[in-house]
Amino acid sequence: MSDIDALNIPKLSLPRIVIVGGGFGGVALAKKLSKKKEVQVVLLDKNNYHTFQPLLYQVSTGGLEPDSIAYPIRKILQDYSNFYFRLAEVQQVKPESKVIVTNIGQLTYDYLVIAAGSTTNFFGNTEIELNGMAMKTIPQSLNLRSLILENFEQALLTDDLHERDALMNFVIVGGGPTGVELAGALAEIKKGILPKDYPDLDTRRAQINLVQSGDRILKGMSDNASKKAEDFLESLGVNIWKNTRVTTYDGKTALTKTELKFEAATLVWAAGVKGVPIAGLDAKEILAGGNRLKVNEFNQVMGHDRIFAIGDIACMQTDATPQGHPMMAQPAIQQGRNLGENLLRLVRDEAMEPFVYKDKGSMATVGRNKAVVDLKNYKFQGVFAWFVWMFIHLFFLIGFRNRVVVFVNWVYNYVRFDREARLIIRPYQRDYSLFKNQKTL
Amino acid sequence: MSDIDALNIPKLSLPRIVIVGGGFGGVALAKKLSKKKEVQVVLLDKNNYHTFQPLLYQVSTGGLEPDSIAYPIRKILQDYSNFYFRLAEVQQVKPESKVIVTNIGQLTYDYLVIAAGSTTNFFGNTEIELNGMAMKTIPQSLNLRSLILENFEQALLTDDLHERDALMNFVIVGGGPTGVELAGALAEIKKGILPKDYPDLDTRRAQINLVQSGDRILKGMSDNASKKAEDFLESLGVNIWKNTRVTTYDGKTALTKTELKFEAATLVWAAGVKGVPIAGLDAKEILAGGNRLKVNEFNQVMGHDRIFAIGDIACMQTDATPQGHPMMAQPAIQQGRNLGENLLRLVRDEAMEPFVYKDKGSMATVGRNKAVVDLKNYKFQGVFAWFVWMFIHLFFLIGFRNRVVVFVNWVYNYVRFDREARLIIRPYQRDYSLFKNQKTL
Repeated sequence: MSDIDALNIPKLSLPRIVIVGGGFGGVALAKKLSKKKEVQVVLLDKNNYHTFQPLLYQVSTGGLEPDSIAYPIRKILQDYSNFYFRLAEVQQVKPESKVIVTNIGQLTYDYLVIAAGSTTNFFGNTEIELNGMAMKTIPQSLNLRSLILENFEQALLTDDLHERDALMNFVIVGGGPTGVELAGALAEIKKGILPKDYPDLDTRRAQINLVQSGDRILKGMSDNASKKAEDFLESLGVNIWKNTRVTTYDGKTALTKTELKFEAATLVWAAGVKGVPIAGLDAKEILAGGNRLKVNEFNQVMGHDRIFAIGDIACMQTDATPQGHPMMAQPAIQQGRNLGENLLRLVRDEAMEPFVYKDKGSMATVGRNKAVVDLKNYKFQGVFAWFVWMFIHLFFLIGFRNRVVVFVNWVYNYVRFDREARLIIRPYQRDYSLFKNQKTL
Repeated sequence: MSDIDALNIPKLSLPRIVIVGGGFGGVALAKKLSKKKEVQVVLLDKNNYHTFQPLLYQVSTGGLEPDSIAYPIRKILQDYSNFYFRLAEVQQVKPESKVIVTNIGQLTYDYLVIAAGSTTNFFGNTEIELNGMAMKTIPQSLNLRSLILENFEQALLTDDLHERDALMNFVIVGGGPTGVELAGALAEIKKGILPKDYPDLDTRRAQINLVQSGDRILKGMSDNASKKAEDFLESLGVNIWKNTRVTTYDGKTALTKTELKFEAATLVWAAGVKGVPIAGLDAKEILAGGNRLKVNEFNQVMGHDRIFAIGDIACMQTDATPQGHPMMAQPAIQQGRNLGENLLRLVRDEAMEPFVYKDKGSMATVGRNKAVVDLKNYKFQGVFAWFVWMFIHLFFLIGFRNRVVVFVNWVYNYVRFDREARLIIRPYQRDYSLFKNQKTL
């Protein structure tokens, strides 16, 4: 077999659209193209599942099983015409020959859509990258879940109060929705589960620290939402550190720009995301801040007619969005849908329609009965916001079974003040050597 | 801290019972001791969860999430008096000083109960151990789940029909309940899911082979059950090879004692289990076949007053059970309960009661509407047996949430002919180099 068709995709007489990434953007785009028989679509992803990223923090904190927020991509595509999925990692794009190079071979395209999403941005701080935890994928979330639980098991084994405190100390860097939601969930675990699970440990000494570089948390939301979220977190006992930047973390001590420091066995870095450049599409002039690909109003990558980018990795700089759109699900979904229509227009030799972002608002949950919601004309916080948050998240989850299982878990967790998925299925091989007297579990 | 109390278990003036293992036996025993305040109980396990092993094959085949068949041990012990859990692996027993050595330190005991279960028995065949898959733990089951799915993704990438067939060929060695249930589940996947998930692959060519060394499958059950299970499997398209022994497997070719051989990317070894000897309790005279510890009718390990063994690792040789009891959940649970009573009798200076096994029957499911059940006076097969199987398994699952989530999944799978947990969350790093043209995914 020649390398060029090693992916065994039949060559049809239809234009071939290759989509890289089965996240919110890629799936929304695929859906738009699903019933049209005018194109052949190849979806590539390094995972065989779609991840519902907004709920990763609930996996990390034992509230949901990972399998309920993942959905098999092949199942999504089952009823689609002329769709092909390949489990592959993209290595390079060769725009001049319209070829994409992957770890399993090369593939030609007529139109290429990069919907590869984003990864954690450590801003070049390799020490934090090495010793801190990220939470952008299901395996990372499971690692964090294991580590949190392992820390408490370790805390039981030391007589040194200082070390025990460090093992029960959590530093979350980044006051965006991820950081806020994780801090809230940890605070509820501290209150509802730790005292029962660890009766021989003074779990009141566990600390949850949320560190934010700016002067308010949830800075993408309204002042009201920020203020209320802070109140909620404080009522749950979370320590909020504003105007604070963590500079290093060796696995035990996190230093900041001031004299403040944290002794903590866990540091979660939720302070930023960035795109991952793809060879062949990494010319300096097409990369915006955070390695995002500069696109025009049709999501065409600058200087490339047949290459598009959507979602987190796309940076559409308009007057309204000088930094591009927020790196969240909504812009990705909307761009995917618009691009779906546009690709069909292209194939039909019609004029494309520019993308117009409809801001549907944003929301974050802090804990039980505590959420903040900003809609365009209506901002509210508290119990009703919390129900709205749950309803919206259930609605956007893919798959009936996932919705039912998540709903069952939420009802159970609510009624019982519990989270039963506190399992160390695959231990996270944490090096505890910085902690005296600590043995490897 | 001195090494002897590195586990930080307070020294009470109560007799200390140390239980090694939180499986069916260990948990049943713990439950018996739970409300008595006459003893201190320390439960050790290398995992922080109890595994419901009879449903592991459903995890491997995407029918259930792993988290629904696992249950946090600390949650089980929450309401128990004087109970302590430690995440630890036992390394050695020193009966003369009543000390148990673990990877996190040493611990003294007054009574020690080994309930460590069993592991896969490859009967010394290291080549099969290296290249075959086992299915005794949740991580192993997840590895198998990943491998099954990876094989189909690989099969798409080759033009060589022979290799493609090998990638879609499954060999299951062992015709006990595990092998039968796994074979049935794979056959249903082949029928219900593969054609939809892999429209560009001729999945009819996928083969499921069940290899049994004896002349019938389910040899622990009645002739009727064996015969009917064979019929069920054959109706599902499973190839049954009786009186056949697999001798080697290099990751591609499985040889047997005859000229029969299988070219298959997957070989699951479900042909036996054995105990894992613990240093200090491994004298030849106390080990029965399969490294099980010889125990008397009180589950006391031969020659050791204060050391007991229950469940798979215990071999109680009686006239009725010359090979010991079957290595299944029921004997473990019953021995755990009996030993619980007996330990309390010991503490109270009363005479112990010998263990009497009540055979409650056995059952296996082959697939949708197809199961076989042997009760003492009543043996039946088919749809009703299948409902009985489901009811019993739901009943024995620990935890209300787990039961509801498993039930939801079963209803969904039944109604939709589907299994949605077909996710490669952590890829199994299979070496496909024996397969030409195959690249590492």
